[in-house]
Amino acid sequence: MKTISHGRILRSWIGHVRSKAATNPHWMAPMAVSLIRKEQKADDGGGLAARRAIRAGSHRGPTAGLAPGNVQGNLAILPQALAADFLRFCQLNPKPCPLIGTSAPGDPRVPELGEDLDIRTDLPRYRVWKNGELVAEPQDIREFWRDDLVSFVIGCSFSFEEALTAEGIELRHITRGCNVPMYRTSIATQAAGPFRGPMVVSMRPLKPREAIRAVQITTRFPSVHGAPVHIGKPEMIGIKDVMKPDYGDAVEVRDDELPVFWACGVTPQSVIATVKPEFCITHYPGSMLVTDRRNTEFAIL
Amino acid sequence: MKTISHGRILRSWIGHVRSKAATNPHWMAPMAVSLIRKEQKADDGGGLAARRAIRAGSHRGPTAGLAPGNVQGNLAILPQALAADFLRFCQLNPKPCPLIGTSAPGDPRVPELGEDLDIRTDLPRYRVWKNGELVAEPQDIREFWRDDLVSFVIGCSFSFEEALTAEGIELRHITRGCNVPMYRTSIATQAAGPFRGPMVVSMRPLKPREAIRAVQITTRFPSVHGAPVHIGKPEMIGIKDVMKPDYGDAVEVRDDELPVFWACGVTPQSVIATVKPEFCITHYPGSMLVTDRRNTEFAIL
Repeated sequence: MKTISHGRILRSWIGHVRSKAATNPHWMAPMAVSLIRKEQKADDGGGLAARRAIRAGSHRGPTAGLAPGNVQGNLAILPQALAADFLRFCQLNPKPCPLIGTSAPGDPRVPELGEDLDIRTDLPRYRVWKNGELVAEPQDIREFWRDDLVSFVIGCSFSFEEALTAEGIELRHITRGCNVPMYRTSIATQAAGPFRGPMVVSMRPLKPREAIRAVQITTRFPSVHGAPVHIGKPEMIGIKDVMKPDYGDAVEVRDDELPVFWACGVTPQSVIATVKPEFCITHYPGSMLVTDRRNTEFAIL
Repeated sequence: MKTISHGRILRSWIGHVRSKAATNPHWMAPMAVSLIRKEQKADDGGGLAARRAIRAGSHRGPTAGLAPGNVQGNLAILPQALAADFLRFCQLNPKPCPLIGTSAPGDPRVPELGEDLDIRTDLPRYRVWKNGELVAEPQDIREFWRDDLVSFVIGCSFSFEEALTAEGIELRHITRGCNVPMYRTSIATQAAGPFRGPMVVSMRPLKPREAIRAVQITTRFPSVHGAPVHIGKPEMIGIKDVMKPDYGDAVEVRDDELPVFWACGVTPQSVIATVKPEFCITHYPGSMLVTDRRNTEFAIL
């Protein structure tokens, strides 16, 4: 894995997220923020070490840069009454909602994703929602825990972005130190129970040769959104102005580039916001679940 | 393999090639003409049966439709003095010049491509060139054979087009019953000895989703040109007007489509025409070598 020092970019991005969140608490930052890992440090250790540091309160803030090369995941926790529908929603829409881990009802563990993993304490920050309203942003959800809660961990584009940058493909939002631009599209998801709504996509401008290579590389990672869903013609998927994203930040698409669109992990968050479940917990933007799984494990070839 | 009856399209195309060739003997039809196979007939048999029918003179004309599912190849035969450079040229430029078979000097067999294969008799028609001039278009090259001749068989897009149409991707030149449009580009090939010149590409207009799928499908076939070399911006590879191809026929690119460009088997023919070797034999356009290998064998996954 190629690691590059991006401390400055990282700090700039953290400030950006914080200021957006501070000025507008309903600002929807992406579940899967797109940052490359900062330089690996000796004390980063593996996923377990990262989770223990978070649990102990010795790491706060975004998880970008923790346990480089390890998969990080988006989190959605729903009452069991909605779990079957949400699970079916994910299975019907594997590109925006690639499930990489689920828990048993009431069980805070997700053993397939990590040793000694406690979903209630191992993310730096959470968002607690009641009837679609944000009611808390705690660093620990033990006090909100219920015996009927089911956790869903959804793959994020961190994993494929690592593979793209490792091949020397520049990702503009990373270079710019901003967030990837995301858009609600005219592509409908497959509904399951109350869960329905448009697919959200992220966009990365790439030169045509890089776009072809990026299709190949991301095809190898079906469990972290996989191949692009669209390329080149934003208007065909209901995007009127590529410079006006619905989430994240606009980045320039140059004349020698094509906008390339991937299904985005913001889709389930957007869908949950529409459903307004009586109770729901998600991760705080940028504060992902750090797993023990390696990005490379998720490459199917 | 999906087989569709395209007898009418095939007949129309054959007429087209013949009339072009008749009115302009220097019209360069593609080495790898792009047609889907016509319906498999009981007497098509395998590659060996096809070659024996050709050798016996009972099959004349284009090989499209013979031995459906079998690989067909472009042919270039050069004196041994040029063979090492041409071989190196192919190895340096595997996308336009994917070598699938070579012979020993003077040996008319290419055992890796077929049983009882005689390169001198097993193609329906040849073109014989002296110092860059076309001197004959015989149905048999035994009288031109020399002990220093080396045969090169180069993969053709038939194989990946079969895979694309099997997935329901419409290829407009096939629907229209015309030849795929081809263009000399500003992409330089890697030179080897006297062999050098621009890469020739073929173009297929595809909807964005199909273009992404086509990248995936053709990536599986590196020995028959593999993934596209460009997508979406013809001017970036030196193509001023996509409606004015240098070889083949123009096909419309609609507003909801992207032009997708693959390296083309016409490249080596174009390069040989520039080099003007003292002696050279190629296949007659559309009269390919039918091999015993299956298209599916060439899929790397």
